[in-house]
Amino acid sequence: MREPRDAFHLAIPAHDLDEAEAFYVGGLGCHLARRYPDRITLDFFGDQVVCHLSPPTAAAGELDLYPRHFGVTFRAREDFDALVALAEQRKLPFFRGVQPRFEGMVEEHLTFVLRDPSDNLLEFKHYRDPRMMY
Amino acid sequence: MREPRDAFHLAIPAHDLDEAEAFYVGGLGCHLARRYPDRITLDFFGDQVVCHLSPPTAAAGELDLYPRHFGVTFRAREDFDALVALAEQRKLPFFRGVQPRFEGMVEEHLTFVLRDPSDNLLEFKHYRDPRMMY
Amino acid sequence: MREPRDAFHLAIPAHDLDEAEAFYVGGLGCHLARRYPDRITLDFFGDQVVCHLSPPTAAAGELDLYPRHFGVTFRAREDFDALVALAEQRKLPFFRGVQPRFEGMVEEHLTFVLRDPSDNLLEFKHYRDPRMMY
Amino acid sequence: MREPRDAFHLAIPAHDLDEAEAFYVGGLGCHLARRYPDRITLDFFGDQVVCHLSPPTAAAGELDLYPRHFGVTFRAREDFDALVALAEQRKLPFFRGVQPRFEGMVEEHLTFVLRDPSDNLLEFKHYRDPRMMY
Amino acid sequence: MREPRDAFHLAIPAHDLDEAEAFYVGGLGCHLARRYPDRITLDFFGDQVVCHLSPPTAAAGELDLYPRHFGVTFRAREDFDALVALAEQRKLPFFRGVQPRFEGMVEEHLTFVLRDPSDNLLEFKHYRDPRMMY
Amino acid sequence: MREPRDAFHLAIPAHDLDEAEAFYVGGLGCHLARRYPDRITLDFFGDQVVCHLSPPTAAAGELDLYPRHFGVTFRAREDFDALVALAEQRKLPFFRGVQPRFEGMVEEHLTFVLRDPSDNLLEFKHYRDPRMMY
Amino acid sequence: MREPRDAFHLAIPAHDLDEAEAFYVGGLGCHLARRYPDRITLDFFGDQVVCHLSPPTAAAGELDLYPRHFGVTFRAREDFDALVALAEQRKLPFFRGVQPRFEGMVEEHLTFVLRDPSDNLLEFKHYRDPRMMY
Amino acid sequence: MREPRDAFHLAIPAHDLDEAEAFYVGGLGCHLARRYPDRITLDFFGDQVVCHLSPPTAAAGELDLYPRHFGVTFRAREDFDALVALAEQRKLPFFRGVQPRFEGMVEEHLTFVLRDPSDNLLEFKHYRDPRMMY
Repeated sequence: MREPRDAFHLAIPAHDLDEAEAFYVGGLGCHLARRYPDRITLDFFGDQVVCHLSPPTAAAGELDLYPRHFGVTFRAREDFDALVALAEQRKLPFFRGVQPRFEGMVEEHLTFVLRDPSDNLLEFKHYRDPRMMY
Repeated sequence: MREPRDAFHLAIPAHDLDEAEAFYVGGLGCHLARRYPDRITLDFFGDQVVCHLSPPTAAAGELDLYPRHFGVTFRAREDFDALVALAEQRKLPFFRGVQPRFEGMVEEHLTFVLRDPSDNLLEFKHYRDPRMMY
Repeated sequence: MREPRDAFHLAIPAHDLDEAEAFYVGGLGCHLARRYPDRITLDFFGDQVVCHLSPPTAAAGELDLYPRHFGVTFRAREDFDALVALAEQRKLPFFRGVQPRFEGMVEEHLTFVLRDPSDNLLEFKHYRDPRMMY
Repeated sequence: MREPRDAFHLAIPAHDLDEAEAFYVGGLGCHLARRYPDRITLDFFGDQVVCHLSPPTAAAGELDLYPRHFGVTFRAREDFDALVALAEQRKLPFFRGVQPRFEGMVEEHLTFVLRDPSDNLLEFKHYRDPRMMY
Repeated sequence: MREPRDAFHLAIPAHDLDEAEAFYVGGLGCHLARRYPDRITLDFFGDQVVCHLSPPTAAAGELDLYPRHFGVTFRAREDFDALVALAEQRKLPFFRGVQPRFEGMVEEHLTFVLRDPSDNLLEFKHYRDPRMMY
Repeated sequence: MREPRDAFHLAIPAHDLDEAEAFYVGGLGCHLARRYPDRITLDFFGDQVVCHLSPPTAAAGELDLYPRHFGVTFRAREDFDALVALAEQRKLPFFRGVQPRFEGMVEEHLTFVLRDPSDNLLEFKHYRDPRMMY
Repeated sequence: MREPRDAFHLAIPAHDLDEAEAFYVGGLGCHLARRYPDRITLDFFGDQVVCHLSPPTAAAGELDLYPRHFGVTFRAREDFDALVALAEQRKLPFFRGVQPRFEGMVEEHLTFVLRDPSDNLLEFKHYRDPRMMY
Repeated sequence: MREPRDAFHLAIPAHDLDEAEAFYVGGLGCHLARRYPDRITLDFFGDQVVCHLSPPTAAAGELDLYPRHFGVTFRAREDFDALVALAEQRKLPFFRGVQPRFEGMVEEHLTFVLRDPSDNLLEFKHYRDPRMMY
């Protein structure tokens, strides 16, 4: 178990803060903590994500899940399922739909990947065996 | 407060897994959860960080804290101080030393930034007013 | 102790949603959960406050703390003090400054009252004896 | 999750303290914390509600759920159901019976509204997706 | 640590329910959960005490702390001190004032004993070493 | 919820400490914290029960559940059932078998009563609606 | 319940640290906290196990579960089952397969025993009645 | 943080169960959970230690802390200090007195070692930096 009183924080680029707020708050259901001219800070599933206004970099080819992405691993299957339902009902852009990985192994988990308006990739997971969350 | 049973996860590039393990496990004191040929997974202050083996990209100029970095915001000052002491005693590479930000404002916090062997930047923070952690 | 997983919710009138958001999010540091044309919902110190767009009623004389107000009673003195500091630094409108009540009695507590842009009154308290919080 | 050691508090008018105590303690099953000549304080599902003796104001037309009401949002469906059962068995006055709202949307929830003897309205809710509680 | 969701319950005699309520609710600051013609039930520091209306038994000599009494052992010294202050300010009847016991031994603790209107004795304790609470 | 770090404590008479230990530790599965010549102290479901060696008083007629008894109210039905199973398997002396009380009312609960070797009565309960535990 | 912030620690012999790490980290899924030339320290299901490099002692006959072994007793059946699945999928060496013990008694539990590369025996258990975990 | 609902368990040899009980219960203040003809089970600081009756093995030379010992690492300095005080007041047999280890390093901690009547060694520790507990 992690310490409930601390917070992970992650800073990511956003090409447009209105789009970012629409995706994270209006779409994903995160809470807006603060908005400044150059960034918004979010309560992202209990941790902090900061979207910094940042021009798009020259595209370096195809968008890839590796090596950079982030997200939440849910202990409870129902929390994972609720987020899948939210993403479908609100038509959030999937980069990859729900699929199992490592089937038949201890590391087996369900995963899906969303794509935010600035092409950041968000992966959400649920492991059958919670000890494999790390 | 965040949910203690879930975990944030973050995937980042590592140019060399041995170096990454030396920095995160031997240096920062994180726990090694698993090692595969192409990645290591870490219990990073209770959340999951995965270092994916990934060749360095062509350097795009100077290393910058924005828009990408990650880390932990500690609720308790003593946890922040303990990590500062660890970083100094173990001579971890600082990108930016301990400094206050937004002094005199509600958002006032202490912060320092480390640099991992693959030039990922890690920021650790402590806010005087814990409500500003988001 | 209350149950951390439930939430109290309170619906109040707001004459102007932008003003309400500026006061509660930009001022008090609450998080914006959702915004609709006719209301905003807030994570208010962990509980839910909903501001419903609502025309001002004909003023019925002077604004009074009784019988209607709401707020938070903090167990820890430091949380109370942090909010006082925030209110002062951000120049939030006080209806009544910090003062003790029931001095010398078991019910002794510190209290201050803020006034939101729609004349809702918010009282924040800290009791010396936490058993008197009810 | 909210902080279990703090308490939300809400002050509301009551035209008659005996009636208020009968409704909140004898009916809803809240605990009476204190009784003074001009008010009673209640442990209301873990938070504090204070009923201040207050003459009825001239009725301004029909009783409306907006913009003022309060209540509890239960994380667990069984807590919601238990309260429905209690309200029915003890024949508490419903202002609006159990009904779903926002069906088919992420915000879908069950809700019912009680009416206390001084015409304060209490809404109790349960969301299918607990992230929508705010 | 004990399980926070369960409750100890204790049934004791009361010669007069009004007196009992005055002592436990108005004096000790416990919350009244329910009142029936033949008993009152109390939230007594988080556990349940039920006072059953019961005629006094023929006094069997002097009142003695042994073998029957009940109370709370506080982990935190400040909770013990707060209750001492409450008992003094509200002039609750002490059967025995604050005193140390087993001084110089591991079992050392502070204790005082109150006497309710039906001659039930209540002992409150604080141990220097919390492992001795049992 | 009660505070997990505090403990209720109850002192009761025991005519014979070996018998008391056999009943509470060997039978009920409580843990023996300490044994002195004149008493034993027990970790009784997380709270403290002290059995003081005490001669039997002249029997005042039939043994009655009122006004004195004690026990635990379990939040979870499975904890109640496990204790019923234990009492039956270990043939602990029932004063009253498992039975419902207040059926069809909000206060409905299951209860059974054990009798210790010194004729102290122990009642264990489980309420369908946990808010009725007080 | 035990205190979540403390840790049990156990030091055991290991004939070969690589083998120990392969068994505990790669096999059992424990996390490697630190590696020194003469020992490794492990986050073993939340407690600390240290494997000290130590030559095998002259075998004193057959390997026996008594009097020395260690392991975890899981409160939740699903945690026990998940570990059984892991041990089978990863073909960890069983010293004794899953079996019930004390069937029909209150102390009934499920248990299996693993054998580490240095012949330390690890027993994992789940009791039907969690009060029997001690 | 470890999971409060699970328990580590450790089985160790005891040459004499009365001596073991005297040391662990009467001395260290652990609670006796059960006693059988061939073993006693203890609530050892919230985890389970079982002392199995077992004849002394032929002494293999001097008693050594490595590779086998066990104990508790306390998060809070005051819990460590309380145990030191208990060990001194009750004159428990020290194998090694309180001493710091790894001074000036991140792994710095205080430690002392007790010796039970069957020559099992118990080490208790407190780390300045709680992240080094593993």
